[in-house]
Order: sequence, then C-alpha cells, then structure tokens
Amino acid sequence: MHFFEDIDIGARRELGAFTFTAEDIKRFAREFDPQRFHLDEEEGRKSLFGGLAASGWHVAAVCMKLLVADGKRVREEAIARGEEVAVWGPSPGFRDLRWIRPVLAGDSISFGSEIETKRTSEKRPEWGIVQARNTGTNQRGELVLSFMGAKFAERRRKET
Amino acid sequence: MHFFEDIDIGARRELGAFTFTAEDIKRFAREFDPQRFHLDEEEGRKSLFGGLAASGWHVAAVCMKLLVADGKRVREEAIARGEEVAVWGPSPGFRDLRWIRPVLAGDSISFGSEIETKRTSEKRPEWGIVQARNTGTNQRGELVLSFMGAKFAERRRKET
Repeated sequence: MHFFEDIDIGARRELGAFTFTAEDIKRFAREFDPQRFHLDEEEGRKSLFGGLAASGWHVAAVCMKLLVADGKRVREEAIARGEEVAVWGPSPGFRDLRWIRPVLAGDSISFGSEIETKRTSEKRPEWGIVQARNTGTNQRGELVLSFMGAKFAERRRKET
Repeated sequence: MHFFEDIDIGARRELGAFTFTAEDIKRFAREFDPQRFHLDEEEGRKSLFGGLAASGWHVAAVCMKLLVADGKRVREEAIARGEEVAVWGPSPGFRDLRWIRPVLAGDSISFGSEIETKRTSEKRPEWGIVQARNTGTNQRGELVLSFMGAKFAERRRKET
C-alpha cells in the first residue's frame, strides 16, 4: 500500500483473470440474485443475455476480491523491500458502475485498475481520497464491467 | 412484475430488513473482500469504521437479494389476481452507489426502493428502462446505502 503522496495518476495495475463457471454463477445467484437468467442455462438462452449469465454483482465482487489481493501483494512487496507501508482505509462508495456486456458461463474476465484522480480530505486531514477506474475485459478483448472506485489512503506524516 | 406502462414515478416498495451477524460479515469477506476490518472485530475497532463492518458489496448484494424477492412477490400477487405479468430484463448498471455509514455486526438494515425515472429505449422498442433509488437504513433511522439502479421492463404490446 502506497502513501497518498506516492500514488501516481495514470498508474495501472493488472489484477489477474477469473473464469466464471456455470457452477460459480448459479451458487452466487442462489444466495444473492436468484433471477432466472442467472440460475438456469435454458432461461439464460431465452433472455436478453443469450446464455447463462453471471449476476453483475458477482462480477463486481470478483473484481473487489482481486483488488484486495493485489493490494496485499503490493504491501508484501513493499515490506520485503524494507519500505514503510501506508494504511488504506475503507471506501466511501463508487460511481458509474456499468455492466457493459454479459459475462456468460465459461467467460474469462481480466481485471485492471487505473488511478484517475486524487485529492486531500478536508474533514480528515490524515487521509487522502484516491479514485481508480476498475475494469473487466473478456477473452475477446471486450469491456464487460467498469466502475470508478474511491478509497481513503493514508498521508505521510510531516517530519518534525 | 408490472409492465413499463403501469409503473408510477414515486411508487415505493419496502423490501424488508436484514440483520448482519458477525458470522455473515466474515463469511462474505473471506470470499470477496478479505480486508482486515471485515474479518476481525479488533481490527474493525481500530479502523475508521469503529467495529467489525460488513463489506459494502455485501450490503449491496443483500439489497439485490431483497429486490429480487420483492419482484417475485409482486409477480405472484399479480398472477393470483389473474393479471397478465410482464417480463423484466436484466440491469444495464447503476449510478451513484454510496456507502454512507458503516454497517456493523448486529445492525439491522431496512431496504426500500422508489421509482425515480422511466423512459423508452430506442434501441429496443419492446423494452422500457426504469430507474429506482434503492436505499438501506439502519435501526437508528440513518441512511447507510443508496444507489440508483436501472432495469429493463417489458412494454405492453399494442392491441391490433
């Protein structure tokens, strides 16, 4: 985890890929989004999706999982180099989540994250707020998911 | 499920309440959002949240689950009254998801959904697009979650 001051606009991280199996899709849907086109192949084929489709919330949650894993990797690499590591706080929300294309059973989605904006917080001077555009792209290079996430990042304490 | 033409701007549905137990919070976090403040009480207390806090994606997924259950209830009631029921399509995304306050272990969140806008779709004349403001409110009446969801709703076929 970088300190707020060390985060560069435009910096991009590849988060890795995830293949959505029919079993994964149905398991998530049964618990959180039990709509017919997320639960049954034939119903998926008859829907606007054209096949068994992952819940959009499932696709976003997998992106979140890979974002967290990437953050841990960055943190461990920094610790291994003997650097001081920053604390990252929770997220206040996100903007413009778009499910651009369906994610069908068997699709492999590659996720990435690119820093778009950073600003200091007036209410919490020890934290900055960083916004990143998070995306998912399928095996044909088509964008399927895009959202702008925000995150609190610790600021470096002034040396006294 | 109502047809696009029968949906009223301002119509509100109470979706029911869900209590987030520590066990629920940790189970979701282990799978999708394994950050320290979602996994461990003590880490939660030390964080900006001030306690073991549900992943925001968990709160949103529970809202989705209750939206789907409510849709099924509306549909079954309409079928029981002998009415023709519309098909609802998938969601193209949502806007302005905000996690306004933390959801801590033991909090009971009441969810609601209110229709804000509706418009026809040029690309798909057989479908309209309906936007609803979905919210979660805790047991102290404080808003914790808000997002604007969009959904395709079937249009009535013209009588010939």
